Amino acid sequence: MGTVSGLYERAASRWSELQGAICAAIEAADGEARFSTDRWSRPGGGGGVSRVLEGGRVFEKAGVNWSDVDGELPEDFAAQLPGWGRRFRATGVSLVLHPRSPMVPTTHANFRFLEKGDAAWFGGGADLTPYYLWREDAEHFHRTLAAACDAHTPVGDYPRFKRWCDEYFFIKHRAETRGVGGIFYDYVGHAPGHERATTADLEAAFAMAGACGDAFVPAYVPIVEQRRDEAYGDDERRWQLLRRGRYVEFNLVYDRGTTFGLKTGGRIESILMSLPPLVRWDHDVSPPGPREAALVEVLRTPVDWLGR
Amino acid sequence: MGTVSGLYERAASRWSELQGAICAAIEAADGEARFSTDRWSRPGGGGGVSRVLEGGRVFEKAGVNWSDVDGELPEDFAAQLPGWGRRFRATGVSLVLHPRSPMVPTTHANFRFLEKGDAAWFGGGADLTPYYLWREDAEHFHRTLAAACDAHTPVGDYPRFKRWCDEYFFIKHRAETRGVGGIFYDYVGHAPGHERATTADLEAAFAMAGACGDAFVPAYVPIVEQRRDEAYGDDERRWQLLRRGRYVEFNLVYDRGTTFGLKTGGRIESILMSLPPLVRWDHDVSPPGPREAALVEVLRTPVDWLGR
Repeated sequence: MGTVSGLYERAASRWSELQGAICAAIEAADGEARFSTDRWSRPGGGGGVSRVLEGGRVFEKAGVNWSDVDGELPEDFAAQLPGWGRRFRATGVSLVLHPRSPMVPTTHANFRFLEKGDAAWFGGGADLTPYYLWREDAEHFHRTLAAACDAHTPVGDYPRFKRWCDEYFFIKHRAETRGVGGIFYDYVGHAPGHERATTADLEAAFAMAGACGDAFVPAYVPIVEQRRDEAYGDDERRWQLLRRGRYVEFNLVYDRGTTFGLKTGGRIESILMSLPPLVRWDHDVSPPGPREAALVEVLRTPVDWLGR
Repeated sequence: MGTVSGLYERAASRWSELQGAICAAIEAADGEARFSTDRWSRPGGGGGVSRVLEGGRVFEKAGVNWSDVDGELPEDFAAQLPGWGRRFRATGVSLVLHPRSPMVPTTHANFRFLEKGDAAWFGGGADLTPYYLWREDAEHFHRTLAAACDAHTPVGDYPRFKRWCDEYFFIKHRAETRGVGGIFYDYVGHAPGHERATTADLEAAFAMAGACGDAFVPAYVPIVEQRRDEAYGDDERRWQLLRRGRYVEFNLVYDRGTTFGLKTGGRIESILMSLPPLVRWDHDVSPPGPREAALVEVLRTPVDWLGR
């Protein structure tokens, strides 16, 4: 492994710095709570740093994980990925932020680099899950991430990554997307048909992935600042808790990282950090009013927020 | 299909009567709330009656479903079951009861009859999920179900059904059982190696399954009556909500009926009626005191409640 000399180590450092920058920006937006830091190592190889904030003024629960792990993939999972053999190493940053106010959207992002056998690639993305919809917020989120992709064409391909995001974050049994999307990409830098990626491919992918990572804070934090003081009551809170149930359903039933991690002995507390702090399931819920119905409408029929 | 003349129809009636009897007993134990009734039909064939109670004095959410459905199973699922072909019909009653008080255990039960090709069998069981443990409650629940099995030996085999329950309701990623067990059985009445079950096998299985169904109310309701007035505070409620998270994790990640139903277009609201009304996920929770630790201990090391 190590197709491009030092790239793995540079990616690991880049994601670690990104973790620090994101945590600092979230603490500033919260204005009160601080992240705790938990360093862990994995029996199979490697380790990571989990940073968690609970009970903040703005954020009810926020987790930002960095990891650098290596080992052997289970046979059936290894067969689904590029590269020979079962040995892999992976480094990435992943986060889920659950605000307290239903007026502030939940968000998830992940930026990672994998090596397996003689293959290597970047994967990741960022997506937004509002409980109440402001179209301009969805547009801002998409516009900011699109700009990062556009600065790195052709490897950065916003229209493709946007569609991929809508397809991936789809709750089949509800016939709804998890949220209003964002970007999702995988196998970037890997040359299909050529097991060995070129240095130029991987460097271009790294530049694009790094730019997307840097775009996360400017894509999300202005929305928090705009919405954190919006008034809401028990009815809006109840709607948020019910919608959080959909988040749990997606993560436990469909999300590849979560289901793979649970079944193969990953670090449970880090994997399940994505689950919301408080969740409701009532029987047979319909959107109680027009604002809630407007949200569900865009989840049933994904919107091309930037018209491209 | 229809290996034993009229058995399917008799089972369907039996489960429908059981639904009524259980709902009446639960309403009596609640003392306040009433079940609503929702009759539905399924595009693929058949239908059912969902009965739901929400916001009761004792029960925060309770669902008791009866169904009688037929259709074609997906190829890969059909291949895992006895009997030729993909055509099936199934009738059963299934329930999950979520009490409001953390001192009263959650319970689940299911009693069903399936026909597929020339095979037919009974499956089902009942299990108990306390938040605080009274050993005499677990013993009473097991003793009552064991008596129903014992009256129908050899087809009723409590020691085997008890172990099967502990094995089935195991949350692998937590290395814990979902609760203190009960009984679980499947393929009862089906003669392995003989695709065609005999009339005597199936009649014996039906008698056993019916007796277990009838044992559910006397196994569970006395525990409700014993514990519903126990005092508790916010800390005990919080522990209950956290443990309910485990219930969600089991149902969405491992439960065969739930994951199968979600992925193959079952009736979502009926399938997910099992999910608790309000749930918490905090980061890295340890049992806060000795009573909570005592519960987790028996979930990590299943107890032979009746010493047999």
